Amino acid sequence: MNRIGPTRVAIVSFDGFNELDSFITLGLLNRLRAKGLSAELCGPGHAISSMHGVTVSLQRPLEWANEAEVVLFGSGLYTRAIAENSALLDRLQLDPVRQLIGAQNSGVLLLARLGLLGERPACTDLVSKPFVQEAGVRVLDEESFHAQGPIATAGGCLAAQYLATWVMLKRAGEAATTEALHEVAPVGEKTRYAEGLLARVRPFLG
Amino acid sequence: MNRIGPTRVAIVSFDGFNELDSFITLGLLNRLRAKGLSAELCGPGHAISSMHGVTVSLQRPLEWANEAEVVLFGSGLYTRAIAENSALLDRLQLDPVRQLIGAQNSGVLLLARLGLLGERPACTDLVSKPFVQEAGVRVLDEESFHAQGPIATAGGCLAAQYLATWVMLKRAGEAATTEALHEVAPVGEKTRYAEGLLARVRPFLG
Repeated sequence: MNRIGPTRVAIVSFDGFNELDSFITLGLLNRLRAKGLSAELCGPGHAISSMHGVTVSLQRPLEWANEAEVVLFGSGLYTRAIAENSALLDRLQLDPVRQLIGAQNSGVLLLARLGLLGERPACTDLVSKPFVQEAGVRVLDEESFHAQGPIATAGGCLAAQYLATWVMLKRAGEAATTEALHEVAPVGEKTRYAEGLLARVRPFLG
Repeated sequence: MNRIGPTRVAIVSFDGFNELDSFITLGLLNRLRAKGLSAELCGPGHAISSMHGVTVSLQRPLEWANEAEVVLFGSGLYTRAIAENSALLDRLQLDPVRQLIGAQNSGVLLLARLGLLGERPACTDLVSKPFVQEAGVRVLDEESFHAQGPIATAGGCLAAQYLATWVMLKRAGEAATTEALHEVAPVGEKTRYAEGLLARVRPFLG
């Protein structure tokens, strides 16, 4: 497999961020680092604290998301407040013409506030659902992943695996994605596990 | 579901740690925090850098593992060097009579060096396998999870989900575990996803 074009993935994370969302996508996507894809935590300030109290240093400022090729929003404890913070959101100037953009759970509310969903329906978790609906978005009740063109949404923390698989497939193709997923899948069930992730995402590649 | 006895889970992590291993167990296990179970990163020093360059503050010193009710070892870039570092390993005085102890991938090498595996076979990943074998352990080639009594091992980064499920089942029982797994599983497939994790671990509860 050849190298792909440089692909910087901004995993946008705020204080109170969900560890599963941010670190599953980060850990999975960096498996393609030798091929030119790298994922980094980006956000406001120098350090943030996770929803269970782990302090992590941000690798990039929030504005780095504007120049990244891929931008992913996880969820967190304070997303509803962030969604109301225009000064913060105004620092994000994302562009689906040149970027892949994804979100999960309460992060989907940020996509809505940034005007990025358009008329697309979206996945989210059960807790965030009423707030996402209030933002004018049709929520897909029984779906864990949905994508149309350059915008993807997922519901459930562990659906971070689908977001990462989607980014890999879009940027690196099926062979490299399968290889990366095999590396991290449970031993003895690698083919079944990887195929489960691929099968969920493949219908949305269009 | 009632509260369980206080259960402190030490997620032992070193410089170069694997984000998937440490943060999947941390994120999943802290779902039972309201019931008395809490998981924290513990290790030597104040801060460590992950295998993909994320700096995180350790929440507890390495020795905290000695008093925790549960101790889990993820993998990392430098585990082989750590396994040769007696001064570091001597700081760990673990006791399977009063602790649940688990490891995955190269972390299994540390269990072997600490003399905790006894005659048990173990799971690990394909890269760590020769080093674990060299430490005198029989590796289960096609298995992602194995446990005997208070000691569990897993192979593959995403098999962290099995280690977490095992700890939950042992400490909080099936009802609380199922509830916690439903919270984080992908939307629309929660029952199937949670049952997949439970089914893998249940045979080892003995």
